[in-house]
Amino acid sequence: MRDAELKQLLRRLAAGEIDEAAAFDALRGSARLGFATVDLARGARCGFPEVVFAEGKSPADTAAIAARIHEHGQRVLITRATEAQFEAVASRIAGAVYHERARCITGPEGADATRVGHVAVLSAGTSDIPVAEEARVTAETLGAEVTARYDVGVAGLHRLAAEFDDFRSANVAVVVAGMEGALPSVVGGLFDRPVIAVPTSIGYGASFGGLAALLGMLNSCAAGVSVVNIDNGFGAGYLAALINRLAVTGDSTKP
Amino acid sequence: MRDAELKQLLRRLAAGEIDEAAAFDALRGSARLGFATVDLARGARCGFPEVVFAEGKSPADTAAIAARIHEHGQRVLITRATEAQFEAVASRIAGAVYHERARCITGPEGADATRVGHVAVLSAGTSDIPVAEEARVTAETLGAEVTARYDVGVAGLHRLAAEFDDFRSANVAVVVAGMEGALPSVVGGLFDRPVIAVPTSIGYGASFGGLAALLGMLNSCAAGVSVVNIDNGFGAGYLAALINRLAVTGDSTKP
Amino acid sequence: MRDAELKQLLRRLAAGEIDEAAAFDALRGSARLGFATVDLARGARCGFPEVVFAEGKSPADTAAIAARIHEHGQRVLITRATEAQFEAVASRIAGAVYHERARCITGPEGADATRVGHVAVLSAGTSDIPVAEEARVTAETLGAEVTARYDVGVAGLHRLAAEFDDFRSANVAVVVAGMEGALPSVVGGLFDRPVIAVPTSIGYGASFGGLAALLGMLNSCAAGVSVVNIDNGFGAGYLAALINRLAVTGDSTKP
Amino acid sequence: MRDAELKQLLRRLAAGEIDEAAAFDALRGSARLGFATVDLARGARCGFPEVVFAEGKSPADTAAIAARIHEHGQRVLITRATEAQFEAVASRIAGAVYHERARCITGPEGADATRVGHVAVLSAGTSDIPVAEEARVTAETLGAEVTARYDVGVAGLHRLAAEFDDFRSANVAVVVAGMEGALPSVVGGLFDRPVIAVPTSIGYGASFGGLAALLGMLNSCAAGVSVVNIDNGFGAGYLAALINRLAVTGDSTKP
Amino acid sequence: MRDAELKQLLRRLAAGEIDEAAAFDALRGSARLGFATVDLARGARCGFPEVVFAEGKSPADTAAIAARIHEHGQRVLITRATEAQFEAVASRIAGAVYHERARCITGPEGADATRVGHVAVLSAGTSDIPVAEEARVTAETLGAEVTARYDVGVAGLHRLAAEFDDFRSANVAVVVAGMEGALPSVVGGLFDRPVIAVPTSIGYGASFGGLAALLGMLNSCAAGVSVVNIDNGFGAGYLAALINRLAVTGDSTKP
Amino acid sequence: MRDAELKQLLRRLAAGEIDEAAAFDALRGSARLGFATVDLARGARCGFPEVVFAEGKSPADTAAIAARIHEHGQRVLITRATEAQFEAVASRIAGAVYHERARCITGPEGADATRVGHVAVLSAGTSDIPVAEEARVTAETLGAEVTARYDVGVAGLHRLAAEFDDFRSANVAVVVAGMEGALPSVVGGLFDRPVIAVPTSIGYGASFGGLAALLGMLNSCAAGVSVVNIDNGFGAGYLAALINRLAVTGDSTKP
Amino acid sequence: MRDAELKQLLRRLAAGEIDEAAAFDALRGSARLGFATVDLARGARCGFPEVVFAEGKSPADTAAIAARIHEHGQRVLITRATEAQFEAVASRIAGAVYHERARCITGPEGADATRVGHVAVLSAGTSDIPVAEEARVTAETLGAEVTARYDVGVAGLHRLAAEFDDFRSANVAVVVAGMEGALPSVVGGLFDRPVIAVPTSIGYGASFGGLAALLGMLNSCAAGVSVVNIDNGFGAGYLAALINRLAVTGDSTKP
Amino acid sequence: MRDAELKQLLRRLAAGEIDEAAAFDALRGSARLGFATVDLARGARCGFPEVVFAEGKSPADTAAIAARIHEHGQRVLITRATEAQFEAVASRIAGAVYHERARCITGPEGADATRVGHVAVLSAGTSDIPVAEEARVTAETLGAEVTARYDVGVAGLHRLAAEFDDFRSANVAVVVAGMEGALPSVVGGLFDRPVIAVPTSIGYGASFGGLAALLGMLNSCAAGVSVVNIDNGFGAGYLAALINRLAVTGDSTKP
Repeated sequence: MRDAELKQLLRRLAAGEIDEAAAFDALRGSARLGFATVDLARGARCGFPEVVFAEGKSPADTAAIAARIHEHGQRVLITRATEAQFEAVASRIAGAVYHERARCITGPEGADATRVGHVAVLSAGTSDIPVAEEARVTAETLGAEVTARYDVGVAGLHRLAAEFDDFRSANVAVVVAGMEGALPSVVGGLFDRPVIAVPTSIGYGASFGGLAALLGMLNSCAAGVSVVNIDNGFGAGYLAALINRLAVTGDSTKP
Repeated sequence: MRDAELKQLLRRLAAGEIDEAAAFDALRGSARLGFATVDLARGARCGFPEVVFAEGKSPADTAAIAARIHEHGQRVLITRATEAQFEAVASRIAGAVYHERARCITGPEGADATRVGHVAVLSAGTSDIPVAEEARVTAETLGAEVTARYDVGVAGLHRLAAEFDDFRSANVAVVVAGMEGALPSVVGGLFDRPVIAVPTSIGYGASFGGLAALLGMLNSCAAGVSVVNIDNGFGAGYLAALINRLAVTGDSTKP
Repeated sequence: MRDAELKQLLRRLAAGEIDEAAAFDALRGSARLGFATVDLARGARCGFPEVVFAEGKSPADTAAIAARIHEHGQRVLITRATEAQFEAVASRIAGAVYHERARCITGPEGADATRVGHVAVLSAGTSDIPVAEEARVTAETLGAEVTARYDVGVAGLHRLAAEFDDFRSANVAVVVAGMEGALPSVVGGLFDRPVIAVPTSIGYGASFGGLAALLGMLNSCAAGVSVVNIDNGFGAGYLAALINRLAVTGDSTKP
Repeated sequence: MRDAELKQLLRRLAAGEIDEAAAFDALRGSARLGFATVDLARGARCGFPEVVFAEGKSPADTAAIAARIHEHGQRVLITRATEAQFEAVASRIAGAVYHERARCITGPEGADATRVGHVAVLSAGTSDIPVAEEARVTAETLGAEVTARYDVGVAGLHRLAAEFDDFRSANVAVVVAGMEGALPSVVGGLFDRPVIAVPTSIGYGASFGGLAALLGMLNSCAAGVSVVNIDNGFGAGYLAALINRLAVTGDSTKP
Repeated sequence: MRDAELKQLLRRLAAGEIDEAAAFDALRGSARLGFATVDLARGARCGFPEVVFAEGKSPADTAAIAARIHEHGQRVLITRATEAQFEAVASRIAGAVYHERARCITGPEGADATRVGHVAVLSAGTSDIPVAEEARVTAETLGAEVTARYDVGVAGLHRLAAEFDDFRSANVAVVVAGMEGALPSVVGGLFDRPVIAVPTSIGYGASFGGLAALLGMLNSCAAGVSVVNIDNGFGAGYLAALINRLAVTGDSTKP
Repeated sequence: MRDAELKQLLRRLAAGEIDEAAAFDALRGSARLGFATVDLARGARCGFPEVVFAEGKSPADTAAIAARIHEHGQRVLITRATEAQFEAVASRIAGAVYHERARCITGPEGADATRVGHVAVLSAGTSDIPVAEEARVTAETLGAEVTARYDVGVAGLHRLAAEFDDFRSANVAVVVAGMEGALPSVVGGLFDRPVIAVPTSIGYGASFGGLAALLGMLNSCAAGVSVVNIDNGFGAGYLAALINRLAVTGDSTKP
Repeated sequence: MRDAELKQLLRRLAAGEIDEAAAFDALRGSARLGFATVDLARGARCGFPEVVFAEGKSPADTAAIAARIHEHGQRVLITRATEAQFEAVASRIAGAVYHERARCITGPEGADATRVGHVAVLSAGTSDIPVAEEARVTAETLGAEVTARYDVGVAGLHRLAAEFDDFRSANVAVVVAGMEGALPSVVGGLFDRPVIAVPTSIGYGASFGGLAALLGMLNSCAAGVSVVNIDNGFGAGYLAALINRLAVTGDSTKP
Repeated sequence: MRDAELKQLLRRLAAGEIDEAAAFDALRGSARLGFATVDLARGARCGFPEVVFAEGKSPADTAAIAARIHEHGQRVLITRATEAQFEAVASRIAGAVYHERARCITGPEGADATRVGHVAVLSAGTSDIPVAEEARVTAETLGAEVTARYDVGVAGLHRLAAEFDDFRSANVAVVVAGMEGALPSVVGGLFDRPVIAVPTSIGYGASFGGLAALLGMLNSCAAGVSVVNIDNGFGAGYLAALINRLAVTGDSTKP
């Protein structure tokens, strides 16, 4: 509850416009929820949909959660989803789409949906594509225009160079790589906007399930690079959409 | 060299306006530098200063590098600097400042310097302050307004709550924490802008030099959080300034 | 054998009330068992049931062990049990219950069973519930009243705040969390009783099978927090019941 | 602010006994502090002193903080303190004591101080004594009677057996061990109260700074054992005092 | 594009021998591809085939890629291939061979194919043979004569001694070993040419999936030993063929 | 070839008793085999059977190898064997036995087989029994009398005490334990002969596949304890039989 | 107390030869000490001296402990000792010797001291000598004849071969190696007696403080090899002396 | 001893040209040395100097070893040397040179010394230069022409591109990098000769002493890359000289 609202409430109580019980309920409500006001305000302000992590949920449960979100008028985004989960969702939400490579389900876009700004998504190898696609679908569902270019690893820099003009105007780049995880450093040296690095568990032997790529990215010698968890395409796409939104909407608040 | 420039050059050579040698020099120059055009354009466009990592450099060398940057009219920023290095720099650059807690040296701000936007820097404990200060000095030197609040760890959430209104309007938050590294998750749940998490090597025993905090932050359950290397206050401040700049200047490029 | 008992025995032998053979048997018995007297006394004093770890045991073996415990009048508690193991047990012990989410089997409660005190069990996410349920069933079977609240993670502090009044009066809290494992620190900052932290193997990528949560909890900045093994809901529930019992029964022994 | 207090405040405002500004200040105060009410209540209820972690603090700063706590009538406890820090503290607080082996400073005990209950502190080797002493001094400063027995490692069980009668009546045992960390398992098999295991960094080679002991304790086959961070004698002593207090004061709250 | 070629091109344009468009295409081609000239030149110069990593690819996709390479007149080499993938390939490329132990598919050798030089491939145990065979098939497909000797581990040095004369004349040795990975050190002490060590994931317990062998090889006390990733028989065979080719073809370039 | 033999050979050649070819064969044989003379001598001297590690071998291959050893009159010992492998072996070697818990196959004992000395095999928990049984079967097959006692973990020392008299006379003890791996330290403190510690992969969470037990055993505070690889019951049984043999046969060689 | 002794005691009490108090003292003494009877018997039987680990002890304390052992007629052995500690010891024990490379102090040998059997101590490099020397001094002080050969690493097998005849007759070999730790496997393949492997922390980079050597030794492909902690020369020498003693004294006990 | 030599020896003995003692000495000599013939032949054939690892050696010892090598006419190379060690060496070997950045001492080059072939040494950052210099000095001392280019990291590819023409003709490249270790992958994608990757311990935080760079290099997606130990500039320079020598001298041996 902001100061102005609180003063208003107290004035109305002092003025006898509301009684003690109503004032108590209003105050205890906010006291109970505490930080929650922030949380709700957040959804309202960003228009970002609620996201469901489907791994380990039954098709029926997944569909039930999705239907509830859909009924509240929010756009559905479900990550790590199987085809079986999609079928359950599709039987309750007309127009739901299964993004096979991304393993994501999205609800139908609203009639007035627009995509704004520009997010680039790059991956080093073809095996990294599922993670990159998860980032792409997430960023698009959250309202960003996305340019995706895959298989542009550091051992063939000419492919990267060939594609570079296409994403030079992006507000932010998501760079997905397994094995040695060197691509974000190379991109970070070429690109003067934020780079979100996503290590993948692709590799074998001393990749140790993505640890090699993760450490490589954390130690990147390029400034402007930050890292999310191994295989966390959703987290990267979400953050990219957040930064893209900031760039598009500007900032009117000053400290 | 962009297509238009190249065509122009070839046309002038075909037309005899320039000779082969001049064309060769122009082409070979760009061939030699290749991606470097990007790199130089970057400095020009962002106005971001070149940054010097002072660790392991002699005071004399540090001062020489700083003087060269200063003479080129760029603002000096030196991280991980000692007092001895500062004295050497100060003897060559009038108005240089030593930020003791941040272990940074900055050159004098230009007369027309302004800080724009709003970056929040928070730290969990008093021991994390040097890393947080490095982030603050970096972001300020790169032109961002910064609000810093330290010692707001998760075991005393009331302090965080008390300070929260002050940084609610920030475009991006840098959150610095050692030990279990839980603060970015808590902030990420309260704040609807990008959060850059910085693990520190503060702790003992099973903190393993910051590994515990690093893993905690990578596994954050809050969306919108990304991570930089342990103790990398500079990297976080740089990225925060980049995002803040995007928010302030908006984005006119579209894919 | 306590001093008084030993003196008594020797006096009886010296007095000819018992012969050498009986004295030998009594003494060698305790000598053979040695520390075992402690062990048996323990079961007697606490009324805590023997606990069976079912993983890797055949349904028949599990049922046989359970039946033997049941026949000795002790309450049965079997952890990490499958449905097949439950069916075998149920065919021998009428009234046995299978706690599906907790993967536990319990024998029928005695007619005069009461639950005392108050143990709180909290979990950060829905995926952590099996471990939390194992803690809850264990603590209840050992005689504690339990309040359980799940899905109160640190990225949504308002939910934690909303539930907090319900467990403020607990003697001890079991806090279960995977991913970054931050919840015990937050609870530890709010709650002035012992907090038992249970890391879970829930997560992916850099959670490394629960290592991230484990390290986070060990490095907790909140005092009053201790940690058990990854996924060890039983251990946490057992310890919580022990502390709860101490709080309820008081302490009449002085050093 | 509890419900009764809030209702009282609103009634007084409605009744005109206080004006809007006073009501606003009171409410905003608690709103600002939020969870802090819990925090303050905690200090009041437990009578536990504030604890200062001295590592990395200057003697002057350490003494200033200690003096402020002392002036508020709370008992001072400073851990990881050097002799230089003690001298600074002693010059401001008459009667301060330096516990050399524990590396702790305590302020003078109040005239009416009593120690209650019974906490046992055991260590496996002589090198573990500093950590064990930190636990002992902490628990004593927080009001517990402590029995300490050192050098009772598992390779000489007869020493443990010989000492066992002395701590059989303890409400809780703190067990400190480096190297293989086996002592808590052995004690846990003999003792039917909570055991708090503290791994130490004592050892060499494959002890990896206490990792071997830490893992050993987490995998303890004895129920009732939980673990704190490597070398965290303070944490163990604090938790032991908490449990001891619960045992002594009993529990009148029911869910 | 080398300087001479560029000067030639510009002269021809200035001389009107080619028009602007042709010059632009030639230059932009190399500009677009950038470093790719190197890449293509490489294939041309070495005659090394393109290699396909089959793991995770469908039989149809694998066959399609193989057919395209085959049609371009390059020899096909496919690693980590299954029998199903081989059948798909064989239906499109007559004469393709499946190397079962090596899990490799190779296309038919050209009529004029010769193998030159001498590469030795040794393995420590029978379980390491698949990795060793992958190295052998790779090196042979890339044109090297290979001598392979398996099961010559360090615990039976007499077998190694018995075989040693057969590979003493090799230009380079690939040494494959799991478990403690000691064989490369022993070979490196006997053999005055480069040794490429390949750790395998063979072993159990503290082999940690090949980590023990990897660390052993990196710490080899013998000079002239370098290491590739765990189980990376292909990488070792490729590098061995490269070194063998250098030894056979000599070097006429001087700095 | 020992000096005396070599001198003899040369003398016979010089004396014309043998010709050059025979001398060459004898010498080159030993030269070729080099250290192998040691190896063969070893088998001869010890009467230890050749041991087959069956994991990953086909039943047919396993049986073929076993038959060859059996035909050479050596006793067969096959570890990590499946029932299918046993059936294949049994069809070729009459009297072969499958030790189910140990997962070992042994050939029929010779008519004059005797077991000598005394090896103790202890395990901490029932889950460790397969590894302990592998050690027992190995040591027995190599001619040692074995006393095995299982389920004598450190959390119930009375069971260990009760069994202790039975193995006090052993020449060497194999101690098998998972989880925290504390049993070897306890046994090492009670027993004045060599203790061979075998960590097992039994456990969950922070046991990390036996790493916790392994580190615990390496850091054992008891002298006289050494460690073999995780789950390596064979290695421990083999070494125990070696030490037992030394104790029984005495030592007549002096430096 | 053995059965016969106990029966004897009870008979004497029943017969009135001793009174209750004496019987109580005798029984309680052994009860108090419990397993300690074993412990004392051990020292008596083996004649092995008590060993002092000097690291972290003051010279005065070290000397005091040493003097007490010396006065009880046991031979002094102090490991990890500094020169300052030696001087303090030498001022109290005439004839004490400082073994500089081994960092050990030994007391004067008794007049009737003899060394028996044969222990081999080998090291891979010159840097491993301090650890090897600690093993040698320990084994000699415990009564074993020792043959030591250093700098016989696997990269120069000819040196090992040249020295091999000298230790072929040893009852047990201690093999010390850092870096890749391969020497024990090679020795284990040549030598048909127990091999005790000691990893050292010698190395750099990926030796990770001896971890590479430790893992290599645990994964040794040679049977008969067991491992002690990194740099634990004492432990290896102690165990070697134990095995050597067994070989020399034979074994008259049978199960 | 080769077959022809052995037959010759035996014929001479049979023919009475030599006596038994001479034949015994010759044979026993080679038997004693065994593989050493290889070793000596190696030095002779390669002309490679013996290399001294100076770390931990006294200046006097270092100088004594160096003098002995120098007197045998071999060129001295001492790595990891301090200035004090150099002064001791220089006092005994006129013309010795201290390479400060490489921390190496070399003896005077022979009058007829020539450098052949072409080895490239590249480093990513200025901090990696000491390791790169160790590689350069080693390769030069072993007779290779070396082109060194430092500070060409992946975040500024234009610098790499600008330097690339200078080392395109090298037979082999040594690529030194700390932090994320990405440079070898990029170079490996551009360069069709062997690449030897050297991780350095340069970095902080999650570089974990070079582990991040090491893992990155092992997982390199470029073929033709192999890796040596962290900071092992010597090993890389040695191997590069070996490969360079092969390229220059060609190979006349065929299997």
